[in-house]
Amino acid sequence: MRFTSQASLDGVAEQIFTLPFTFGEIPGVLWTPEDAVEARPLILMGHGGGQHKKAPGILARAHRFVAEGGFAVAAIDAPNHGNRPKDEEFDRIAGELRAGMAAGEGPSVLAAAMHGHLARQTVAEWQAVITAVQELERVGVGPVGYWGMSMGCGLGLPLLAAEPRIRAAVLGLLGVHGLAETAAGVTVPVEFLLQWDDNLVPRAQGLALFDALGSADKTLHANPGKHGEIPEFETDSSLRFFTRHLG
Amino acid sequence: MRFTSQASLDGVAEQIFTLPFTFGEIPGVLWTPEDAVEARPLILMGHGGGQHKKAPGILARAHRFVAEGGFAVAAIDAPNHGNRPKDEEFDRIAGELRAGMAAGEGPSVLAAAMHGHLARQTVAEWQAVITAVQELERVGVGPVGYWGMSMGCGLGLPLLAAEPRIRAAVLGLLGVHGLAETAAGVTVPVEFLLQWDDNLVPRAQGLALFDALGSADKTLHANPGKHGEIPEFETDSSLRFFTRHLG
Repeated sequence: MRFTSQASLDGVAEQIFTLPFTFGEIPGVLWTPEDAVEARPLILMGHGGGQHKKAPGILARAHRFVAEGGFAVAAIDAPNHGNRPKDEEFDRIAGELRAGMAAGEGPSVLAAAMHGHLARQTVAEWQAVITAVQELERVGVGPVGYWGMSMGCGLGLPLLAAEPRIRAAVLGLLGVHGLAETAAGVTVPVEFLLQWDDNLVPRAQGLALFDALGSADKTLHANPGKHGEIPEFETDSSLRFFTRHLG
Repeated sequence: MRFTSQASLDGVAEQIFTLPFTFGEIPGVLWTPEDAVEARPLILMGHGGGQHKKAPGILARAHRFVAEGGFAVAAIDAPNHGNRPKDEEFDRIAGELRAGMAAGEGPSVLAAAMHGHLARQTVAEWQAVITAVQELERVGVGPVGYWGMSMGCGLGLPLLAAEPRIRAAVLGLLGVHGLAETAAGVTVPVEFLLQWDDNLVPRAQGLALFDALGSADKTLHANPGKHGEIPEFETDSSLRFFTRHLG
């Protein structure tokens, strides 16, 4: 892992890194408390489709998780996102998705195809990131959490089903399409966010994904509003959830 | 309002009272911080069917709301419950409800009939209790909250629709049957609890009641488990919800 830049804001240190891996370098970012020396729980944040590792929602939550919870937080650009090159298969699926939505189709089926395509790569990438980041003294080998909405949920579920180091997750804004079996393999505590008036994910599909989760300890938080309109108080709740399960 | 006994436990003062009213005396209980002198927000707690003002769930939550939130909390025996006499119409509906459930019927329709019968009386009773309790210096005229599950939700909804002094409510464990119009008239912030495997309230009925609430600010918390098995962390959440909206 190679650090390429370092900055600091309001007590939160931000380091951009690249991690060489099978499919080319993974561009990532690590946030820790400025004065961090000892080990602490790590939260991975998976961004949404079309976003990147420093999208405003990721950045704002990462800062709160570090500043208020004392966590380390890592985010990476998903394949075909942010600073990463695009592959032909992704371009084809993304083109179909845009055309389908322009024609008034729901994105569920094509989004599931896209997440499936990316997840073949991202599970192993996140696993490599956990290993690399936990070698730093100020992170260390401790419990890991995962936060991901929408595409971040679609890529998080296969990771959670495969990776025992992750002990708790905040997921949501996604339907069950193509994910029922994977979701059944998730057994860690999950806080699942659903937007009651989601314009991209049909309500019944989102409820069915919550239902499909294999976790004995799972809790659904549903709020009025469209896909991206999660109320700010849910960030407080995510923070408490991670503190409860990783702290 | 006449106080008939006073006790104290872990910093929480408990006073049993009776309030003379149209339909006979209302037996109630008021909890406040032991050292309370100044005004504070008031939370009303409506118990479930067959329970009473000091049922274990009411008592435990009331103590936490007072000790950790500094609130005043009041509970009363609903008509035909606790120390109150039973009327013939209630006996008839309760008998039908028991017989129906013994025969394997869901309780939705008959529970709605029972709540409708009781609510004709309880809305005015709670309004009288708010007025009486707020005359005490250590409560005072401030914002009021309402907490009620199951029958406590069925009797709370018509109260919330009618009573502008109540500014926020935690409700749940009930279906929409007979309540859609009343729920649409509720406009204050609501945190709504639903048990995902509720053995008395069909999941779709509970989701439909959340959907029917007129409140722009409403949030649904669903957890695995049967009717009475709300996880303890939801009491933390209720406390934060009331602090956010009444504090």
